[in-house]
Amino acid sequence: MGYFEKTYHPPGTPPGTLVAYGDAISDGLSVRLIDYTSSEYSHKILERADECSNYVTKDSVTWIHLQGQIQADMILDIGNQFGLHPLAMEDILNTGQRSKIEEYEEQLFIIMSAPGNINNTTLEQISLFLGKNYIISICTGDSDPFEPLRSRLQKKVGRIRQKKADYLLYCILDLVIDMGFPLLESYGEVIEAIEDELLSSKTKQITLKKIHHIRRELLLLRRNLWPQRDIINSLLRDENELINEGTLLYLRDCYDHTIQIMELIETYRDMTTNMTDIYLSSSSHRLNEVMRILTIIATIFIPLTFVVGLYGMNFNHPESPWAMPELRWYYGYPLIWVIMISIVIGMITYFKKKHWF
Amino acid sequence: MGYFEKTYHPPGTPPGTLVAYGDAISDGLSVRLIDYTSSEYSHKILERADECSNYVTKDSVTWIHLQGQIQADMILDIGNQFGLHPLAMEDILNTGQRSKIEEYEEQLFIIMSAPGNINNTTLEQISLFLGKNYIISICTGDSDPFEPLRSRLQKKVGRIRQKKADYLLYCILDLVIDMGFPLLESYGEVIEAIEDELLSSKTKQITLKKIHHIRRELLLLRRNLWPQRDIINSLLRDENELINEGTLLYLRDCYDHTIQIMELIETYRDMTTNMTDIYLSSSSHRLNEVMRILTIIATIFIPLTFVVGLYGMNFNHPESPWAMPELRWYYGYPLIWVIMISIVIGMITYFKKKHWF
Amino acid sequence: MGYFEKTYHPPGTPPGTLVAYGDAISDGLSVRLIDYTSSEYSHKILERADECSNYVTKDSVTWIHLQGQIQADMILDIGNQFGLHPLAMEDILNTGQRSKIEEYEEQLFIIMSAPGNINNTTLEQISLFLGKNYIISICTGDSDPFEPLRSRLQKKVGRIRQKKADYLLYCILDLVIDMGFPLLESYGEVIEAIEDELLSSKTKQITLKKIHHIRRELLLLRRNLWPQRDIINSLLRDENELINEGTLLYLRDCYDHTIQIMELIETYRDMTTNMTDIYLSSSSHRLNEVMRILTIIATIFIPLTFVVGLYGMNFNHPESPWAMPELRWYYGYPLIWVIMISIVIGMITYFKKKHWF
Amino acid sequence: MGYFEKTYHPPGTPPGTLVAYGDAISDGLSVRLIDYTSSEYSHKILERADECSNYVTKDSVTWIHLQGQIQADMILDIGNQFGLHPLAMEDILNTGQRSKIEEYEEQLFIIMSAPGNINNTTLEQISLFLGKNYIISICTGDSDPFEPLRSRLQKKVGRIRQKKADYLLYCILDLVIDMGFPLLESYGEVIEAIEDELLSSKTKQITLKKIHHIRRELLLLRRNLWPQRDIINSLLRDENELINEGTLLYLRDCYDHTIQIMELIETYRDMTTNMTDIYLSSSSHRLNEVMRILTIIATIFIPLTFVVGLYGMNFNHPESPWAMPELRWYYGYPLIWVIMISIVIGMITYFKKKHWF
Amino acid sequence: MGYFEKTYHPPGTPPGTLVAYGDAISDGLSVRLIDYTSSEYSHKILERADECSNYVTKDSVTWIHLQGQIQADMILDIGNQFGLHPLAMEDILNTGQRSKIEEYEEQLFIIMSAPGNINNTTLEQISLFLGKNYIISICTGDSDPFEPLRSRLQKKVGRIRQKKADYLLYCILDLVIDMGFPLLESYGEVIEAIEDELLSSKTKQITLKKIHHIRRELLLLRRNLWPQRDIINSLLRDENELINEGTLLYLRDCYDHTIQIMELIETYRDMTTNMTDIYLSSSSHRLNEVMRILTIIATIFIPLTFVVGLYGMNFNHPESPWAMPELRWYYGYPLIWVIMISIVIGMITYFKKKHWF
Repeated sequence: MGYFEKTYHPPGTPPGTLVAYGDAISDGLSVRLIDYTSSEYSHKILERADECSNYVTKDSVTWIHLQGQIQADMILDIGNQFGLHPLAMEDILNTGQRSKIEEYEEQLFIIMSAPGNINNTTLEQISLFLGKNYIISICTGDSDPFEPLRSRLQKKVGRIRQKKADYLLYCILDLVIDMGFPLLESYGEVIEAIEDELLSSKTKQITLKKIHHIRRELLLLRRNLWPQRDIINSLLRDENELINEGTLLYLRDCYDHTIQIMELIETYRDMTTNMTDIYLSSSSHRLNEVMRILTIIATIFIPLTFVVGLYGMNFNHPESPWAMPELRWYYGYPLIWVIMISIVIGMITYFKKKHWF
Repeated sequence: MGYFEKTYHPPGTPPGTLVAYGDAISDGLSVRLIDYTSSEYSHKILERADECSNYVTKDSVTWIHLQGQIQADMILDIGNQFGLHPLAMEDILNTGQRSKIEEYEEQLFIIMSAPGNINNTTLEQISLFLGKNYIISICTGDSDPFEPLRSRLQKKVGRIRQKKADYLLYCILDLVIDMGFPLLESYGEVIEAIEDELLSSKTKQITLKKIHHIRRELLLLRRNLWPQRDIINSLLRDENELINEGTLLYLRDCYDHTIQIMELIETYRDMTTNMTDIYLSSSSHRLNEVMRILTIIATIFIPLTFVVGLYGMNFNHPESPWAMPELRWYYGYPLIWVIMISIVIGMITYFKKKHWF
Repeated sequence: MGYFEKTYHPPGTPPGTLVAYGDAISDGLSVRLIDYTSSEYSHKILERADECSNYVTKDSVTWIHLQGQIQADMILDIGNQFGLHPLAMEDILNTGQRSKIEEYEEQLFIIMSAPGNINNTTLEQISLFLGKNYIISICTGDSDPFEPLRSRLQKKVGRIRQKKADYLLYCILDLVIDMGFPLLESYGEVIEAIEDELLSSKTKQITLKKIHHIRRELLLLRRNLWPQRDIINSLLRDENELINEGTLLYLRDCYDHTIQIMELIETYRDMTTNMTDIYLSSSSHRLNEVMRILTIIATIFIPLTFVVGLYGMNFNHPESPWAMPELRWYYGYPLIWVIMISIVIGMITYFKKKHWF
Repeated sequence: MGYFEKTYHPPGTPPGTLVAYGDAISDGLSVRLIDYTSSEYSHKILERADECSNYVTKDSVTWIHLQGQIQADMILDIGNQFGLHPLAMEDILNTGQRSKIEEYEEQLFIIMSAPGNINNTTLEQISLFLGKNYIISICTGDSDPFEPLRSRLQKKVGRIRQKKADYLLYCILDLVIDMGFPLLESYGEVIEAIEDELLSSKTKQITLKKIHHIRRELLLLRRNLWPQRDIINSLLRDENELINEGTLLYLRDCYDHTIQIMELIETYRDMTTNMTDIYLSSSSHRLNEVMRILTIIATIFIPLTFVVGLYGMNFNHPESPWAMPELRWYYGYPLIWVIMISIVIGMITYFKKKHWF
Repeated sequence: MGYFEKTYHPPGTPPGTLVAYGDAISDGLSVRLIDYTSSEYSHKILERADECSNYVTKDSVTWIHLQGQIQADMILDIGNQFGLHPLAMEDILNTGQRSKIEEYEEQLFIIMSAPGNINNTTLEQISLFLGKNYIISICTGDSDPFEPLRSRLQKKVGRIRQKKADYLLYCILDLVIDMGFPLLESYGEVIEAIEDELLSSKTKQITLKKIHHIRRELLLLRRNLWPQRDIINSLLRDENELINEGTLLYLRDCYDHTIQIMELIETYRDMTTNMTDIYLSSSSHRLNEVMRILTIIATIFIPLTFVVGLYGMNFNHPESPWAMPELRWYYGYPLIWVIMISIVIGMITYFKKKHWF
């Protein structure tokens, strides 16, 4: 995720201008139309937008789902049939929008950000229109997140087929919001791993990079997921006639989930702030230790070296047998080498034990 | 406590799906039924859920308490008899919920987090249903926290037997909230101990670990206990007909306790933030001291060593009696050793006194 | 002051249980009864609680003041005569309460924290009951803070004798709140002294302890005094019939004082945060200076020492008169000692001037 | 941008005093008058203010745009014709105003700040008057930002010619607000570049300057753009009769943009705060590494140097063949030089690899 | 400015006690009485308070201004004639009050803090009473800030003579608030100067002192000026009958100024926080550099010194012409001195260039 992800027109462009941005990575656009009542269910792949004209006023619930690279003309065709507002259509194409809810006369327009997974933390923009009997969902990105819902619709699992379009909207929102939990669970594991690293082993440059990376991700995630709470809250508070009384109870559950997600993100952010403090403290502790060893060795040996330098140790004269007898030993010189090599090996062993290498 | 404790369904699961998570650590589930009026009191262990069917509409106060590993079918059985909402039953099983209150038509559903003790800081989820004449409480975890209440009920201590189910709810909430005080008292002692360590003795890696641990615990405790304030506040503010006027006065006392707990947690959090600052400052002060000693010794002896190196101290020629007479003393060389060993012992004594070893 | 000062019952104790905690430090309990109208004034020491029974409904203003170690039975006796609520009586005994105001049917119950002085920063809990014609005040601690008020009552200074019990309540609250000013004035002086220390002289461990101590005191003071603002605000906002219109103007003055106290505490807290930053910056500046000196001396002399070591300065051969003539001087060796001792004295003088010792 | 950009009168100057500040950098003032209905369009450069007198009450939409160095008398002339308030005229001349909206009886007065680009981050003050049929816009600075709008008006692109003056106001506000996006996009790139620098290469003084510069810019940008959100919000909330119902939908889109801009600025600010932490942590990590190398080398060689100093290595006597045979080799001395030069080259290569030079 | 500037009575003093604090620095008190209508203007120096008795109910606007050392009896005399409230009179004498507004029955009482200049940052307390036809202003301090207003009144500049007492109040408030701009402008310059110092040259202790000083000033300024915003806001919001509708527009301009002042202070505070971070980062960067140089020199020369120490460089035997021929050169010894002095001069030049001296 980058800091600036918004696609925008040059300042001064007329409002409602439809230009499709984005590189042609996705292999085109797939348009699905699902139509169901409690008893019937049909699913087809649309080729042209005018195929859906019959469904605009039909009593059954119609769900049109566009997945992949959005094309300006397809949006315009569908938009004309369902009477979508030009500003809403512009927002679909200018990806990187802030999640928001907009009430039009006969429609509710919602933009959500679907979090990905820890390895691929791009956010996909999901645009939703709720009408009286239909939902139009537009999702950029390669993988279709709504497969589980279609399966529940087809297999008639739970209440979903008995309910109206507003319940389908709840199911979609719930799905998108719950996609945050696996991501946050993996973040939690990463944070606990970094904590262990910080407190147990030596400070590494790589740990710092990890802390920075997770802070950055949390910052961007927070910015993108924060408005979702407001969207659900606005659905609960504003009495919109497109949302039935009975669905509100379910949306309240949804709202609890958004709060839990925000609290987790805040907890993680607090924790990563703590971790930078610990990194610094632990680093400062280690420096103290290193300096203490240097100071001990240096302050002991520097005066000694002065003393032996002072006397040049020229005691080797015949008057006294106490005058450096070591110099006259047969193996004196090799013995010195043995002593010195022992010191080196001892020091290196000590530093290895302290993980200085 | 881990950062991510929530049990959740995979995104896309239908709402109200009942699956019991959690490993089979607890030795099964115990279900108690207590039924009392001001004059009568009965207590039995339920084997099957349908045994409680008689109590649903009975005028006496009925308290059903489930303790231990929650089983999905038992919840479903009891839920059907008392008309519990599917989303509420799902929340009981998906442990790690945020504390919350939910008003259903004839019931009040509350989730609380019961704090443990300092040695075992896991939080148990306590789910409560308040009906007209009954309370159902579900508590995961091994130890039953409600023993004191049952004892008061049986022994008729205080007003509890004269009052209705809403007073029992107050007693339960009060008990759960007050479980925070012993934990916070022990945290306070730990923080004061760390403070003493920080300011008196030398900086230790272990102190840093302790600070980090307590910050982490406080962060998680705060996240879990914060919503309890909102729950009590919501009981006080929303005039729910299940709560009698007279009980509100007691709940206000409860509310004061939640505020006091939150203020203690905030105070502790501020204090641990201070402690990291002190750790850093104190560490930096110590480094200064270490470096000052090194610099003093090194800057004094390095020029001296240069001087003695310069002259190689080859003064030992016969022309002058002033030329290093020490070299010609009988015990010159052993004397040098005595001087040098004294320096080493002096230094080591000094460093020991400064706690550098 | 400790972080956890609250006296609490074990979780699960029935509400309204009266147990007197606290060690028997205070030498018992003194109970004073003052009764006055604009013309009359009487003052007596009560031995038994039932002596005050005549004053419960009397038209004159009655002020009962309990000072010292609170006894559960005395509270209960007085409570029964004036109809005090069991939860209020429990709060009197469980000291360390958060300051709060509670409205009962015919009474107002207020708990305040009276700040002490800088040398003895324990807070005393002051509990107040305002009835139609009486005030009951309970104050733990040895010294009676209300002496100036009694003197004003007796000497008829100001308006106090013309007014009712609510004006007496204002006088008590004003006195308790204003006790914060001398304490904060002394804190202000301490903070300015630490600032001077930080910026002028060398960093000392003791300065760090002082900063920590004042931060800790401010944190606890803030937690305890913050709710006083809410109490006065609540008296101003809620139109309680026990408080006359005319007294509100005086309470507004009181409210300004609580705001000024909170602002002073916040200013002090900000300043102590700054001071930790300055400590670190100043410490880091000093380290830089120390290291610079070490580096200058070391990098100059280490290569020189190498050079003189390289040649062993064995120039002393007869071929050249330029080869180290110093070695052949008569006073060569003592001269070297003079040079070296001069270096040592110079260095030590320099370090003394820099306050390194 | 400087911290203090406001032009202000000396305290005590009468309100409504018109004095033009600013140096004569801009080459005078250009005044354009555009007048259009859905069918007609005229554009002329005004020489004198009284030329616009015909347009004050005309039904067509009139847009008077002043660009360049503002002259007090020109503002006064136009102001008299359109009935502008003296305080509003004073605000036009005292540049560096906070963005604000002011409702007068028949006019709406808005001050905006137009952000420039990353290379030239001065903010231009744009003052706008909305009347029933006219807009007066005053813009300091050399370049005219409204060229795209005039082009749309002339070429009849989009709805702009069908709409009234309030839609033109929306277009101007939208243009000014959207000018923030390219600037923030470039800031985002700068921040990502600094991040890469921080985590990959060595700490440089220049990086610190860059971080400081971007923080400063963001701080000032935030202060200047924050009130724009309030302006648009105030237009949406207060039902002003100069703004048609249909334009509100467009302004809501505008409002979303201001929120997105503020969120981006907040995200960037959080990120730059993180960057200072990383700079410090990374710097502290590097210091640790440097000190570790010094300590390893010094603690190994200082005792060895003591040992060789101790014995003065005077083993070169005839008794033992083991006594330093190297000294008697033919090429002994040049060999030592080879060893020493190898050490120097090895060290320098190592430090080069670590980017220490 | 000190942290604690409030003058207060000992706790327990009766409300409304009038005692004049402050040392007798000012040379007495001057009392001016200005009386004007749109046509007439009179100005006299009052000797005794009862001279103003005629003006209490007069229709013209009367402005009584007390400047200098406040005397309790003078305040009491004037207070009795105009019916000032005892608590308000007490606040005039107890200087160091928080800025506030108080509505009495027929009067408005306002306390403001007038900021001085950068060299003398004491705040003067300005107390204002607004009555139906009069304003009483009391200002401690030597210099009279209202000279420009009196000049405008006398010379009939602007609208001031046509308007009533409430417009005069606005003029006074506007003057006092605008006195903040020159102070903040000079603070802005100081901050920019410190920034340049921080980023360009070496870290100095004096810079740290400057940062601390400016932070302290801003903290105190913020505490004192913050309530002014509330005062103006309260005048705008509460419809007081002493303030005419037409004056509100002018007060709104005043309100904008208070907001701009608060925003400037916040921006400055943020910037000084940044500066401490930069100081630390820059200091840490410099330490790294110093340590790098020390480590390079030390790690290169310490092993070399060991090598030359090892062999004692006793190669000077007749067997080989390669054995240290330098020692036998005629000018060998002076050459060594030349080399060593060159090293010293080179090092010192390098350190000078790095500003280490």
